[in-house]
Amino acid sequence: MSYIPAELIKKKKNGESHTEDEIRWIIRAYTNNELPDYQMAAWAMAVWFRGMNEHEISVFTAAMRDSGNRFDFSKLKSPRIDKHSTGGVGDKTSLIIGPILAAAKVHVPMIAGRGLGHSGGTLDKLESISGFRVNLTREEFQKSVEENYFALMGQTHDICPADRKLYALRDVTSTVDSLPLICGSIMSKKLSEDLTGLVMDVKFGSGAFMKSLADAQALSQLLKTTGEKNGIDVTVVISNMNEPLGRFSGNSVEVQECIDILSNKTFVEHDFDFYEPTRRLSVELAGHMLYLAKKCDSPAEGASLAESLVQSGAALTEFKLFLQRQGGDWQAELPRAQHSDVVVAAKSGILQSINTELVGLAGIELGAGRKKSEDKIDHTAGIETCRRVGMRVTKGDIIFNVFANSTAGFASAKNLLLSAIEIGDTQPKELLPLVAKVLM
Amino acid sequence: MSYIPAELIKKKKNGESHTEDEIRWIIRAYTNNELPDYQMAAWAMAVWFRGMNEHEISVFTAAMRDSGNRFDFSKLKSPRIDKHSTGGVGDKTSLIIGPILAAAKVHVPMIAGRGLGHSGGTLDKLESISGFRVNLTREEFQKSVEENYFALMGQTHDICPADRKLYALRDVTSTVDSLPLICGSIMSKKLSEDLTGLVMDVKFGSGAFMKSLADAQALSQLLKTTGEKNGIDVTVVISNMNEPLGRFSGNSVEVQECIDILSNKTFVEHDFDFYEPTRRLSVELAGHMLYLAKKCDSPAEGASLAESLVQSGAALTEFKLFLQRQGGDWQAELPRAQHSDVVVAAKSGILQSINTELVGLAGIELGAGRKKSEDKIDHTAGIETCRRVGMRVTKGDIIFNVFANSTAGFASAKNLLLSAIEIGDTQPKELLPLVAKVLM
Repeated sequence: MSYIPAELIKKKKNGESHTEDEIRWIIRAYTNNELPDYQMAAWAMAVWFRGMNEHEISVFTAAMRDSGNRFDFSKLKSPRIDKHSTGGVGDKTSLIIGPILAAAKVHVPMIAGRGLGHSGGTLDKLESISGFRVNLTREEFQKSVEENYFALMGQTHDICPADRKLYALRDVTSTVDSLPLICGSIMSKKLSEDLTGLVMDVKFGSGAFMKSLADAQALSQLLKTTGEKNGIDVTVVISNMNEPLGRFSGNSVEVQECIDILSNKTFVEHDFDFYEPTRRLSVELAGHMLYLAKKCDSPAEGASLAESLVQSGAALTEFKLFLQRQGGDWQAELPRAQHSDVVVAAKSGILQSINTELVGLAGIELGAGRKKSEDKIDHTAGIETCRRVGMRVTKGDIIFNVFANSTAGFASAKNLLLSAIEIGDTQPKELLPLVAKVLM
Repeated sequence: MSYIPAELIKKKKNGESHTEDEIRWIIRAYTNNELPDYQMAAWAMAVWFRGMNEHEISVFTAAMRDSGNRFDFSKLKSPRIDKHSTGGVGDKTSLIIGPILAAAKVHVPMIAGRGLGHSGGTLDKLESISGFRVNLTREEFQKSVEENYFALMGQTHDICPADRKLYALRDVTSTVDSLPLICGSIMSKKLSEDLTGLVMDVKFGSGAFMKSLADAQALSQLLKTTGEKNGIDVTVVISNMNEPLGRFSGNSVEVQECIDILSNKTFVEHDFDFYEPTRRLSVELAGHMLYLAKKCDSPAEGASLAESLVQSGAALTEFKLFLQRQGGDWQAELPRAQHSDVVVAAKSGILQSINTELVGLAGIELGAGRKKSEDKIDHTAGIETCRRVGMRVTKGDIIFNVFANSTAGFASAKNLLLSAIEIGDTQPKELLPLVAKVLM
């Protein structure tokens, strides 16, 4: 069956729903370059205004998954569980979660991404480890997941080519911020991993893509429904990104934080363990994954199991094995920045808020992220957040430490960080918890 | 000043207004192929949803006018008045109006179009006259308007190239039916004629682009405001296209109707002069043009003057001179179709309505219009409408005569025409007048 593209655009423009056949045709024709960019752009804008219903989103997602190659782990006959986050600042839980799940003998086929905008990327973090390879072949990845439980790779060109093409188009046509299109983009890639279950970490707050809890909840519900309609269990953890997660944001500094946590270290200052949020969120997400993998009878039991696997050192052992398998030099020191500087409180009072997106953008200025996709990053660059929202500070106290191999970005990064913090006289009114909501 | 296209699309998508500089940049960049089709398509769809305010539309229209060459009649120091219709079936008034205005010594620089969709085009009608040339050079056209008052040509590639490009894009991205974009497309071309005044004939009804009077009024107001903001007087006549205008629709048959009217002939059947609607609308439109040209003190006086110029034969003389100037053979017989057939009433009763778009589409089946822009047309093909809405008909009465040089389209044309008419037992409830409203 073939369609007249303008008629399909008109249908969506007028607020009607597409049939499964129509959506599959759109994605197939776009992937094959039969539907030109200008018609896809008009359609995407019509979707931005009119949305898609659950059935349309489910089919759209499946059609994007089917636009390329997908993994097949069916011969395992045991659960495959992944965790995926919508992106934030200092969000490093994948590096702790993968080893925990491997220690519990749960398969985790994790296809990860690079930093995007102000948010960091798992691939970039791992590449701060000397020798680490993210570009596994499909065969290496498949074999490693089967034999070693946890493997991680970057997205290849043959996975979801429709999404790759559409994402690039959305970026230049201002159609990124559409819930159905976001949902399809995230879930098509996850569905291509042939999972049985997925834990989504949907971030909300100043450092997240979704600024409000309500928007995060709407996306969460869509992600859950779309995954389930395509045959996988989905748990969504809606977590707080109104502050950077844990102590560090950057690349090698985040890896260091993970190794410290897996080594059961703490970092207590001003009566607060700055490693605690990362550890807690990692353990909670891992708990949900273990529950989906039927390794326990509740997510709470799963979290206890995860915690014990960290405490025993089993997860650290799995992390070392994981690094070795993918070429990483476990013995080598992590690279450290040659320069550092501080951002201090301009006045005394109580820290009201941290605009976490600005912290992410400051990281880019330091070289921890990219302004253009071709840019090279400085793996040592990063930021240490030394105070938490609600803490009392005195004028001159250090709020952030900044690190990099070049001081070129220090001035602009420090300016951004100064403008990111607000200091007032009273306790900030609303402090949402680290995990605001769970959809199971 | 340069802009990031995605930011401009985002602005419109979010319902904000563009600055003059932004709109001029969009049109300039699109004309120069610096703004790709996919971004223009997303912007056009955002405009479809969000609209543009009067200032934006005015600037958008001026920017499209300025994308190419425009005429300059300023050395004339006397009014230049054109008439433009939004398109209908049997709408042939230009061929009567041009000669009337020339007889009144008013300059009419008329750039006309071809048939589009179900509606006919003035160029196609005139080309049914042996030898008639519509492709004047700019210089020939300019000189003829200056010396002979009335000249007519087709749009050239150097007039409003932005509109030409955007119109083709809108056609394939379902963004044709947007009032601001329609207004810009129509008015940019009219503004390029360097007019002092314009009479717009905005059609409403089943054979018009705007089906409802309300939609026609909205477009009318936009056209008037946009023209006036760009320095020309605009009168809008909102006229009824719920029946084909007058006796014939097609090409040579419409020219014949015009010559008959300019020769003061009538065609009375069933107590109705089927030439009367065409004559009346032409005279009324010409009256408004004469008023804008300050040849009289009111449109009604203008209509009287126009009527007298037809009655005296002065307009017919001008029509002959016009044909001769552009190579038309006035002596030759108009081509006549080799075949004809009839569509008869399937039952007795009162003619309730004529779906006039279907009459236009039946004309295309006969060969009077084009399915694809490359198609050649049969200038003899056409339809005679033999009954008017509200007339009593008896089963077997002829409602339409169809003509063409090939009978290939007769079956499908007759089917369309049969389905276009509705016959009932009572008088149709609402019969709007030929001219429903005038905006002055």
